[in-house]
Amino acid sequence: MENNPKYIPWAKPDFWGNEIKYVTDALESSWISGGAYLDRLETDFRKLLKTKHVLAVSNGTTAIHLAYLGLGLKPGDEVIVPGFAFMAAANIALHMNLKPVFAEVDAETWCLSAKNLSHYISSKTKAIVAVHTYGNVCDIDEIMKIADEHGIAVIEDCAESLFSKYKGRYCGTFGKINTFSFQATKTITTGEGGLVVTDSDELNKKMALYRSHGMDRGKKFYWHDLPGHNFRLTNFQAAIGVAQLEKTDVILIERKRVYEQYKKRLSTKDGIAFQKIKKETDPVIWAIAVKLEAKYFAQGRDKVIEQMKAKGIETRPGFYASGLLPIYESHSLPVCEDISKNVISLPSFPSLQNEDIAFICEELLKLRM
Amino acid sequence: MENNPKYIPWAKPDFWGNEIKYVTDALESSWISGGAYLDRLETDFRKLLKTKHVLAVSNGTTAIHLAYLGLGLKPGDEVIVPGFAFMAAANIALHMNLKPVFAEVDAETWCLSAKNLSHYISSKTKAIVAVHTYGNVCDIDEIMKIADEHGIAVIEDCAESLFSKYKGRYCGTFGKINTFSFQATKTITTGEGGLVVTDSDELNKKMALYRSHGMDRGKKFYWHDLPGHNFRLTNFQAAIGVAQLEKTDVILIERKRVYEQYKKRLSTKDGIAFQKIKKETDPVIWAIAVKLEAKYFAQGRDKVIEQMKAKGIETRPGFYASGLLPIYESHSLPVCEDISKNVISLPSFPSLQNEDIAFICEELLKLRM
Repeated sequence: MENNPKYIPWAKPDFWGNEIKYVTDALESSWISGGAYLDRLETDFRKLLKTKHVLAVSNGTTAIHLAYLGLGLKPGDEVIVPGFAFMAAANIALHMNLKPVFAEVDAETWCLSAKNLSHYISSKTKAIVAVHTYGNVCDIDEIMKIADEHGIAVIEDCAESLFSKYKGRYCGTFGKINTFSFQATKTITTGEGGLVVTDSDELNKKMALYRSHGMDRGKKFYWHDLPGHNFRLTNFQAAIGVAQLEKTDVILIERKRVYEQYKKRLSTKDGIAFQKIKKETDPVIWAIAVKLEAKYFAQGRDKVIEQMKAKGIETRPGFYASGLLPIYESHSLPVCEDISKNVISLPSFPSLQNEDIAFICEELLKLRM
Repeated sequence: MENNPKYIPWAKPDFWGNEIKYVTDALESSWISGGAYLDRLETDFRKLLKTKHVLAVSNGTTAIHLAYLGLGLKPGDEVIVPGFAFMAAANIALHMNLKPVFAEVDAETWCLSAKNLSHYISSKTKAIVAVHTYGNVCDIDEIMKIADEHGIAVIEDCAESLFSKYKGRYCGTFGKINTFSFQATKTITTGEGGLVVTDSDELNKKMALYRSHGMDRGKKFYWHDLPGHNFRLTNFQAAIGVAQLEKTDVILIERKRVYEQYKKRLSTKDGIAFQKIKKETDPVIWAIAVKLEAKYFAQGRDKVIEQMKAKGIETRPGFYASGLLPIYESHSLPVCEDISKNVISLPSFPSLQNEDIAFICEELLKLRM
């Protein structure tokens, strides 16, 4: 973030309420590690999501790690992940010596496609990670159906889709274990942070142990029931989360406004395609991304990013598709690669002003050739 | 921590300076993820430790994980860890499908013994983790000599030994990669947090990538050079660390006072043995622990903990030795088990008052039979 008034960042955390008050309170209470705000954050999300268990964790990536540990995944097990998405689920698979199997995404929603999903399933498949990319929601009913038929667990990766709904129900409430992120650019932020959500008592108990060294202090100090990690969130980070959650209404109104402003100015223009929002879905779009058609943007997406930057507008490319990243073994996934190469995401934070959005859209449209 | 004025907790974080001011500043700057306090924390420790590279991370356990990743440890590799210590190094070994090989500790210093260390070395040994337990320091020169002879990397786990010195030099500056913790009870705290320290440009670069998804944003957004994790510390946690570090002098004076008070009241008493501090060593004791002799404390250590609790004094047992924990495959390590079963650690925080220490010691001595 620069001081140049013309510079528009891609994201900016906004504090609307009691953030500083609660953090100060948490620090003054001395409960800086565990504490009341952590309990409240977990309780508030349990009520909101109408789920049985919520564990606050250090970030959205450790949330996925915890989900894999909860499911008891073992070296050699296969995990199906979308070939276009932020790659946390694939990377954690490699950390655990699992095999990430990359699956094609839907050309219109850019999310994991249910259509060919069963092609990727083998006798080694133990989990499917449904990433709700940019806040849009996968065809979760269809994915659940296929997974259930094969006895495979679904993990919804909701890092980008907090508050998004599918058939009136929050995403992150369909899979066996579901994960969220409170990273700095996210709809609710704790700087770094996340959640793991499940209705299973058994999985929750196991994951609570893995979160904190495998120790249950209520039972025995320094006794490791299992080889746990440290995926704990601090109480004063939770304090920020609680303050943000109190302002959800305002945040969602502003995020919706920003999305509608972009829609109004860009959706009818040639060469620009938005992520399709299906009728079952009521998403909270985290990052407003559009696909640029090569016919109109012959200079290519990466050049467009440079051109926007020259105007003081920070944008980001789409995620690299698995097949484009040498660290993975991936099938050729043409839809993933097409989206990956042509998507640009635009400044999307809730305090972004309408005149800034108008300026961003105008500049983007000027770049059509 | 209870409101009962007679209750003395085992640990309590104390804020002596600019903690709230800096956190507020960090939040108001909007730089809640990366930012200036993170840079300052890393720079300050680089100068203090006179080391080439410092990476701030999310906690002392992720610091060890990062060190193993930096060394490129692979499934089946062996890592030598002490059989009496906090078990983070062993647990992370299991997470990475490495084999933790548990080694005997010194009966007097309670730290990894150099004496029989070479017995545990095989062709598969890739690292030795020297845990400086309770703030005491291992015979690091001897350990380094053995490791160097075998071409094995040493990781100093300084989670408990920040500011401890060996032959005038800070621990955490001897091994190839060294780790620290800023957990809530530690000498400097950021709620949860830690450091990874190395003089190697190559290892530092690799670990910096692993810390944040394998991505180098300066280069290419969303490009994963390697399958990274998320071990990042937030800027506002770093702000607390910076404020604490400014007060190091006061914190160390108070920690030293607390230690000396205990020493004065307990060290000459029958049935109570302190951890031996060798002449090469100038430690900052994190947790003041004493070994209870069965002849004098026939009720056993666990009963003593209960008896102290009944007096409003929170104490903790020694760590469970590896051989006592069913999750590990461990040699029989009689010294580790003896220490494990008989050590009790006493309230040890810097704001603990002399009259409280007098009360704690008096109550402990009363329990001799």
